[in-house]
Amino acid sequence: MNDNAFGIREGEIAVELPKDYDASLYFIGCIRTPWKTRDQCPKNARESEAVCTLELDPRWAQALTDVESCTHLVVLYWMNRSRRDLVLQVPRTYGFGRGTFALRSPARPNPIAMSVVRLVGVEGPRLSVVGLDCLDDTPLLDIKPYFASTDAVPDAVVGWHKAQKR
Amino acid sequence: MNDNAFGIREGEIAVELPKDYDASLYFIGCIRTPWKTRDQCPKNARESEAVCTLELDPRWAQALTDVESCTHLVVLYWMNRSRRDLVLQVPRTYGFGRGTFALRSPARPNPIAMSVVRLVGVEGPRLSVVGLDCLDDTPLLDIKPYFASTDAVPDAVVGWHKAQKR
Repeated sequence: MNDNAFGIREGEIAVELPKDYDASLYFIGCIRTPWKTRDQCPKNARESEAVCTLELDPRWAQALTDVESCTHLVVLYWMNRSRRDLVLQVPRTYGFGRGTFALRSPARPNPIAMSVVRLVGVEGPRLSVVGLDCLDDTPLLDIKPYFASTDAVPDAVVGWHKAQKR
Repeated sequence: MNDNAFGIREGEIAVELPKDYDASLYFIGCIRTPWKTRDQCPKNARESEAVCTLELDPRWAQALTDVESCTHLVVLYWMNRSRRDLVLQVPRTYGFGRGTFALRSPARPNPIAMSVVRLVGVEGPRLSVVGLDCLDDTPLLDIKPYFASTDAVPDAVVGWHKAQKR
């Protein structure tokens, strides 16, 4: 927790949060990964071939029926260690202010992360997957089948990111 | 609301929901679409070229900085018209019981939908996008840049779905 995730950097802008919440979530399990601090996490999920585990609460185990037939899954999880009020952010990696919704940063009004993972095994309520970059013990929110027909856009471009790499 | 979304079909299984919630969400805006009832919604987001609008609460408008440079976005939204306790479901389209996490059905413990959309325009706090299939006035939760490098898996397969189409 002591990675200064709640600080604010020069050039960052925060807004006042709404007074009330509008909806609520259940943690349906947790994600086990090899990474205990942010610095240990891979910069990009495709950088790592580490096998991580989605550990589902037994209450929901039957909901995994047929999941073993999927090669890839969409995983949603909760990143509650960041502030939720930033609209402009200066990521350490880029050192330049960007809008929150143009970034995949965990700091956002609703800190729900989305990762596409490759399913490598199912054992009871535990799924072994490759493609995550989150901290160990991250709360799990949802698992969905990945449909290439609607979810895969190989020629999509993030313009600001492409320009930066030049 | 009278589309019987809270009913249960033969072969479906519900579990007892946890007593308490674990986290909470802000609705950051709403999604305007041409569809007022479930029956009107396209069966699949790729079926429709309808332009829909993400209307952001002005509080968050500055967080859209740099979003215009993205060709595609990940949109998360809240589907609060379905029950959250189903583990096995019998979708009308398929007529066969499937696990909740093997389906993209709105009925799930955390009814967060994920859609990949094509960005066609930005006007202040409003984004025009193609690729949604949800009801008009659906609450918006998050907008993220779509990175082909991590999010596009063109050869992914949902085995149960493929088998069914044969």
